[in-house]
Amino acid sequence: MNRRNFTRELTGVLAGALGVRAVAVISPTLRERTQLPAQPRLRVNGVRLNESLSALAEFGKTAAGGVTRLAYGDADRAAREYAMGLMRAAKLEVRVDAAGNIIGRRAGREAALPAILFGSHIDSVPDGGRYDGNVGSMGAIEVAQTLADNNVVTRHPLEVVIFQNEEGGLIGSRGMIGALTERELDLVSRSGKTIRDGITFIGGDPARLAEARRKPGELAAYLELHIEQGAVLDTEKIDIGVVEGIVGINWWDVTVQGFANHAGTTPMDRRRDALLAAARFIEAVNRVVTSVPGRQVGTVGRIQALPGAPNVIPGTVVLSLELRDLDAAKINMLYERIRAEARRIGDASGTVFDFKEINVNEPAPTDPRLRGMIADAARELGLTTKVMPSGAGHDAQDMARIGPAGMIFVPSVGGISHSPRELSRAEDITNGANVLLGTVLKVDAAR
Amino acid sequence: MNRRNFTRELTGVLAGALGVRAVAVISPTLRERTQLPAQPRLRVNGVRLNESLSALAEFGKTAAGGVTRLAYGDADRAAREYAMGLMRAAKLEVRVDAAGNIIGRRAGREAALPAILFGSHIDSVPDGGRYDGNVGSMGAIEVAQTLADNNVVTRHPLEVVIFQNEEGGLIGSRGMIGALTERELDLVSRSGKTIRDGITFIGGDPARLAEARRKPGELAAYLELHIEQGAVLDTEKIDIGVVEGIVGINWWDVTVQGFANHAGTTPMDRRRDALLAAARFIEAVNRVVTSVPGRQVGTVGRIQALPGAPNVIPGTVVLSLELRDLDAAKINMLYERIRAEARRIGDASGTVFDFKEINVNEPAPTDPRLRGMIADAARELGLTTKVMPSGAGHDAQDMARIGPAGMIFVPSVGGISHSPRELSRAEDITNGANVLLGTVLKVDAAR
Repeated sequence: MNRRNFTRELTGVLAGALGVRAVAVISPTLRERTQLPAQPRLRVNGVRLNESLSALAEFGKTAAGGVTRLAYGDADRAAREYAMGLMRAAKLEVRVDAAGNIIGRRAGREAALPAILFGSHIDSVPDGGRYDGNVGSMGAIEVAQTLADNNVVTRHPLEVVIFQNEEGGLIGSRGMIGALTERELDLVSRSGKTIRDGITFIGGDPARLAEARRKPGELAAYLELHIEQGAVLDTEKIDIGVVEGIVGINWWDVTVQGFANHAGTTPMDRRRDALLAAARFIEAVNRVVTSVPGRQVGTVGRIQALPGAPNVIPGTVVLSLELRDLDAAKINMLYERIRAEARRIGDASGTVFDFKEINVNEPAPTDPRLRGMIADAARELGLTTKVMPSGAGHDAQDMARIGPAGMIFVPSVGGISHSPRELSRAEDITNGANVLLGTVLKVDAAR
Repeated sequence: MNRRNFTRELTGVLAGALGVRAVAVISPTLRERTQLPAQPRLRVNGVRLNESLSALAEFGKTAAGGVTRLAYGDADRAAREYAMGLMRAAKLEVRVDAAGNIIGRRAGREAALPAILFGSHIDSVPDGGRYDGNVGSMGAIEVAQTLADNNVVTRHPLEVVIFQNEEGGLIGSRGMIGALTERELDLVSRSGKTIRDGITFIGGDPARLAEARRKPGELAAYLELHIEQGAVLDTEKIDIGVVEGIVGINWWDVTVQGFANHAGTTPMDRRRDALLAAARFIEAVNRVVTSVPGRQVGTVGRIQALPGAPNVIPGTVVLSLELRDLDAAKINMLYERIRAEARRIGDASGTVFDFKEINVNEPAPTDPRLRGMIADAARELGLTTKVMPSGAGHDAQDMARIGPAGMIFVPSVGGISHSPRELSRAEDITNGANVLLGTVLKVDAAR
């Protein structure tokens, strides 16, 4: 923890303690009314949490100091065993659902109440980092362990979840909300196994996917702690990001058709150069996306020019266009402007642009009430906060389809992610877990 | 022949006849002085020439109507056998030099005179056309056949050449001028064979390459008839291109170094997008190259963005830059301006540009005296001409290093080349062969 304000910290100690006691012993309203003296605030064990993270980083460890822990690989399965051991130690009843997600459950005091679900994932991209997903997974188990250590029994059942194959397309959470299709089960994942075989490999049952499904309203909340994967918190020296939503992501493949010709014998004024047109398009994407205020992003990340020889004017270029924003209408507005630019560039250069929609993820706003609880929990710990979108996709975006979801970000040093250089500081990770703990207790206490 | 001018045609008939008669019988100065009545002008047999071209097109014929006749492949070797048969029929003494070039020689009347060399190549690019190289090769043999049919014995020895592996880097002509290195002999050609093995395959002897070498001053001239491979003659309705030189070609690989990052979590103003910088660079290349008058060309034909995923901001881009012009100083001037633009773009975008020179072909001007003779020969045939650079590389550029070289272009319909759609009209091919014949005779007659 850093940049504390003593006064706010003191308030935090009071409120935090009230929250915990309320859960364990008496109603918060009574505590608040009576203004009892502060009790020691419940905190996670930061040393233990960061040790768990270090131990987890051994599974699929790379020479560069990161991890390659592809979903359905041996390192993934071994890491899952390790996580399940930690869950059992935290007095959670562990099972693997039909979709392959690990769920550790502990009963609450009030049988009729819906569960509070919290967690993240532990699979990684190839040559990824030690923090993406892992922080939220180990953080969630640490919260459960802390509650167990302190004999705190919540009103609601608690479920800690480790979603499977987040990096391969949110497969586990999509299984949980019933969005996984039969066709997808046959796609080959980066491990080399089909998703279907992968689910079996990690203890799920692809033939009984329906049993993994959680219905809308079935959960009190889903909460996920995660590293930011961007540089906003790190640059602005802010402790906690309160995620206002996961952005929508629209991805198109754009084909630019010109005419391939000899680079030596074709004068400059007789060319229909698809790469020159594509270059103007890439500039136009940047210009359009930055022409309006806001945090929308637009990226051309992939490009191929054909035939692709130094001495041939490219006749065809295929490139990717990706737009992200919290507001689907804004994405559409930007897309229409980009298409108009493409038409203009095509007309001027004798080329034709064609757009093919490849994938659309609708924006997923988080629950305003949960945002407030996260911000309150952070404030009570004396931590600074910033409300921000998640530019990256997360399992939380699926869970937001069936109930209230909230996300807590901690800083990524330099904003680096999906890289062995990914780093979040131990104290920031501990802060994040404490905010998660505080938020779980607030959800539990809320009536 | 088309677009004739009757008056010029008449003059041409006179001069052409004088030239031929002069070679065969009396000195041109005497003929000119005495103004004898016109004799029938010597002409190639256009029907026979175009039939040879059709027959040659059977070797390596593709379904699309073009040819794939890679140097050192079976189709190449069979086509060479066919060509050698035509050469023998044209009363040429045929040999394969140590570098694998086919040379058909006929002695001249004056033993001390250097040979006049003329020809082209018959190997093709993959999925190439029927005319590139073939027109000049069959045209040269047709010239020799015409001279033989008419019992014309020139003063100089004549040598018809079919260079090997032009498309793979002017290998045969580079062997002839002593520019082929041992290292190159071990490179694998598109046929799958090394150049060394390929030379053996077609009857050369890579161990005795030195014997293939022709020294500076050893040849009276080198003449090559070729299709234009561009659209200038076709668009401007001109019969014959008088090539003023083969352009210099400079090729660099340009690396743009930015920083790869998450396309969702990295705000637009915190990106160091190597592809956006590369796009600005591609535009700058076009702007710089077209900012000064002239026929220079600049091309970015190849591009690779890494890591190359739709959801990752490219951290590295590698692209090719090729500049061509008849004037090496102009190429350098353009390159320096492009580098300055790259620095400006790099500074503005947080990226770094690095240029690596891959290959330099110096410009090869043709011989002014040969240009004059080609133009005269064309005019005498009533053909329109245009002085123009060759934007493509040719064996003539090597031969220009060791003696006077000249090139004759005929129109390519639509400027299409290196394609099954490559086409030159039969009458244009016949015109070109007649200009080659007239030029050979002018060189022979010149004192």
